[in-house]
Amino acid sequence: MKAPRIPEATVARLSLYSRFLENLDQKEVGFVSSGEIAEGLSINPAQVRKDLAYFGDFGTRGVGYKVKDLLGCTLNILGLDQKWPLILVGAGALGYAVCDYQGFNKRGFSIVAVFDSNPAKIGKIVGRIEVLPMVKMPEIIKNHHVRIGIIAVPANAAQEVVDQMVKNGLEGVLNYTPVNLVIPEGVEVINIDLSVGLESLTFKLSQKEL
Amino acid sequence: MKAPRIPEATVARLSLYSRFLENLDQKEVGFVSSGEIAEGLSINPAQVRKDLAYFGDFGTRGVGYKVKDLLGCTLNILGLDQKWPLILVGAGALGYAVCDYQGFNKRGFSIVAVFDSNPAKIGKIVGRIEVLPMVKMPEIIKNHHVRIGIIAVPANAAQEVVDQMVKNGLEGVLNYTPVNLVIPEGVEVINIDLSVGLESLTFKLSQKEL
Repeated sequence: MKAPRIPEATVARLSLYSRFLENLDQKEVGFVSSGEIAEGLSINPAQVRKDLAYFGDFGTRGVGYKVKDLLGCTLNILGLDQKWPLILVGAGALGYAVCDYQGFNKRGFSIVAVFDSNPAKIGKIVGRIEVLPMVKMPEIIKNHHVRIGIIAVPANAAQEVVDQMVKNGLEGVLNYTPVNLVIPEGVEVINIDLSVGLESLTFKLSQKEL
Repeated sequence: MKAPRIPEATVARLSLYSRFLENLDQKEVGFVSSGEIAEGLSINPAQVRKDLAYFGDFGTRGVGYKVKDLLGCTLNILGLDQKWPLILVGAGALGYAVCDYQGFNKRGFSIVAVFDSNPAKIGKIVGRIEVLPMVKMPEIIKNHHVRIGIIAVPANAAQEVVDQMVKNGLEGVLNYTPVNLVIPEGVEVINIDLSVGLESLTFKLSQKEL
């Protein structure tokens, strides 16, 4: 069965729902309504209902959703019912920050190796992981069945790094650099821009002044 | 005149258009079509035309948009025709990464102060800026007319930091922690999640397998 085409914004919200449900589940809350999810995440309730409808009808009128079931379903759709080993390239401040980031591990992600092209950084420890030289990449990807790589290098090195990742069989790239990477068909890139959010803020604050 | 309500996704794309136009302008390209913008950014051309239509009719059929005019317009709408002094709280790896991030400065942003509550970090240099104790926050905000603060502290300290920012008059917060901050009406928060993007990737790779 082919799943319906789900908009990217819905997938991003699904991540948020999933984390929210995880929190409820940890607090042993049994049921939740779409209204409570909407309120907890400051999202329009109609939007929440529309998003959840993509994944079939789980709710019971007047009772809401069973937290464990809905959580399991969101994790399954996001592909998080399996472990995802990751590699990271770039042992600078951003690489450290990403390795430190709370919330990767508990979602089934684990960074299995950090690479850097700077010989001075090889052997250093980033978030409990030793920095390896770039030549080790093929071996690590193969041995750990890695499918996703994270790019946290300076902008001018990003394309070269993604080329190497693709050559070594990676299918997904999380790009923290402000570069539009050129990638072949079939490889997925998600760009995380650290500053676009700031411009949404200046937009809003400027509108306030009008 | 009240501007039409612009969807958040459009504002985010407007940031992308604006950077793309900046690049063209630096290369002294005079005119650009919506199709070229769409191709350069891998966005649907109809979406680009729809987004630009929010801001009035700038294009000339067959010639396209004048790069300088459209760039000026995007900067104006985003509020980037003025300087935005920022403060950052959290002198850890993430704070370093944000201070290092290329692309803040050239968009009119400058981080004027970095704060941390850890006495051991006071006086250290993060991206050419000295780390200050939290008690200095009111003075810095007032002297530099700061309206926006960046939160790059550990998750469990985030709410306390935003409370202090709000108390000192900040109107906008860029939140890099995975915490849903509680803020009063009238203060804008933009959450930058470093790992939601990863879940969009696992979603796509899992769909590929089906």
